[in-house]
Amino acid sequence: MKIERIPLREGRDDVTLTTYVLDDSAEMLGGAARPAVLILPGGGYLSCSDREGEPIAMAFASLGYHAFVLRYSVYGEVDFTRAIEPRERSQYPNPLVDVGLAMREIREHAGEWSVDVDRIAVCGFSAGGHNASMYATHWDKPVITDAVGEGLRPAALIAAYAVTDYVDVVERAGEMADMERTMRLAIATAYLGTSAPSQEALVAASPALVADENTPPSFLWGTAGDTLVPARHSMRFAERLADVGVPYELHVYEKGRHGLSLATQASAGSRGDIEPRAADWFRQAAAWLETRFALDVPALSAWERKDT
Amino acid sequence: MKIERIPLREGRDDVTLTTYVLDDSAEMLGGAARPAVLILPGGGYLSCSDREGEPIAMAFASLGYHAFVLRYSVYGEVDFTRAIEPRERSQYPNPLVDVGLAMREIREHAGEWSVDVDRIAVCGFSAGGHNASMYATHWDKPVITDAVGEGLRPAALIAAYAVTDYVDVVERAGEMADMERTMRLAIATAYLGTSAPSQEALVAASPALVADENTPPSFLWGTAGDTLVPARHSMRFAERLADVGVPYELHVYEKGRHGLSLATQASAGSRGDIEPRAADWFRQAAAWLETRFALDVPALSAWERKDT
Repeated sequence: MKIERIPLREGRDDVTLTTYVLDDSAEMLGGAARPAVLILPGGGYLSCSDREGEPIAMAFASLGYHAFVLRYSVYGEVDFTRAIEPRERSQYPNPLVDVGLAMREIREHAGEWSVDVDRIAVCGFSAGGHNASMYATHWDKPVITDAVGEGLRPAALIAAYAVTDYVDVVERAGEMADMERTMRLAIATAYLGTSAPSQEALVAASPALVADENTPPSFLWGTAGDTLVPARHSMRFAERLADVGVPYELHVYEKGRHGLSLATQASAGSRGDIEPRAADWFRQAAAWLETRFALDVPALSAWERKDT
Repeated sequence: MKIERIPLREGRDDVTLTTYVLDDSAEMLGGAARPAVLILPGGGYLSCSDREGEPIAMAFASLGYHAFVLRYSVYGEVDFTRAIEPRERSQYPNPLVDVGLAMREIREHAGEWSVDVDRIAVCGFSAGGHNASMYATHWDKPVITDAVGEGLRPAALIAAYAVTDYVDVVERAGEMADMERTMRLAIATAYLGTSAPSQEALVAASPALVADENTPPSFLWGTAGDTLVPARHSMRFAERLADVGVPYELHVYEKGRHGLSLATQASAGSRGDIEPRAADWFRQAAAWLETRFALDVPALSAWERKDT
């Protein structure tokens, strides 16, 4: 396995692509390119959570796919007891352009890393799920193509308890308990520069409202127990995908709070992050992905060909 | 993740320990030591198969355990159309001592790598399963303690379609088809220096005949379809463990040839290595291991403690 942390923006060390490139062998694919998964951790555009980085990379690598973890532009640490001041860095379109830069980086190294560029999934969690969904719905739009040249179409989107509807984030913040309301408004300020964005800005930042027929097949999941980013975000996105004719799966598990990651001990920050039922999501996602990302396993090995 | 390939024997580059040491984070275990799995690929003591190395490391790493792949002393490439000449390198006790050297290396780096040395499993496949089982049954015996000082007790053994009974390997070779007979005799010569070892040498090399109450809890699996190393090897080992009072699990799946590794596309050399039923073994092994190798996940995260 080749591990490397590559800075994607000149003169900055916060936007990086970490590679988890699998070794190959004449005993396995013999150099054939493998599909890959680009992973975007969550953290409300305030940080990128380690819990949704390497543990997810290991899970996809265990399926035989290369994995990449993107740490995109985020706001930085905040004090949730007060409103935050806008900062340029984490604002639209910067974190989205970072995804374009990551895809370009992977494409440029595809030969060296044996990546099948036609089969790269983007997989994000929470705000990272928003960023992944934004890329999935904007890879062919000027916001990406002007910034990084030809946008690389992701072959699939996997979005975990993702923010997909910024109108909901802001308009329903008033319903929330104190801490969750403050977090929602911080997330809006971090991404849109104000806790009261225009309706137009909110809609433009909502994959559930703007997805079109160029959005790739999508696997969405969440938990009914999530109060910070309710499962309706995933359901509305699914409804939009159905309307525009994009294949999708949706799995909503009954129990589990926001931010479960794998929902196993491998990614838990505390015991409340372990939810055996919700941990089913990765098995479902793996099976769904395998229908599109089958490895080029030879019918017969070199040994068997010699043998027969 | 920290990847490093460490030579274990002075002046040789064939015996190596490859580390797959997980990153930790204040958001996860906060530096608490993790259990680890030491992986021994198979290959009839003639080679170490890549198919049973990194793909297995990824699978265990996805559970939150550090993984290590040991390439132990093997004979080298052979021509299966003729009998092989003995070579010192792959003979008992060299490959077994290599496991002791690997355990010592892990223990010496336990602080740096955050390894819980009381919770290291050895996990081997085919001849690697034999080598792992030999270590599990000899870690406290002079063959190890004389060579590496105090033997480190493995907390668990996972043995996949393992050779556990050398008497069977040699005595029943005559029943086999040509190629399989030649392979069995090559494997005997590689490990015991002759295709007709003494009964005493065969018994001494048979974990199924010598396991005692110091053997750690064991998870054994194989397939009824395996003609090269029949499932009776695992069954006899299990019977012995029962007799000496060592906890064990045994899973024999109906279909599948020898050498399935994960039995998924992630480790397949050709399509015949993909067996969805047999691929269940890893889920079973993971669940079994988790009862002994639970991570030290905090009851509450730093964030939750602040919150409450």
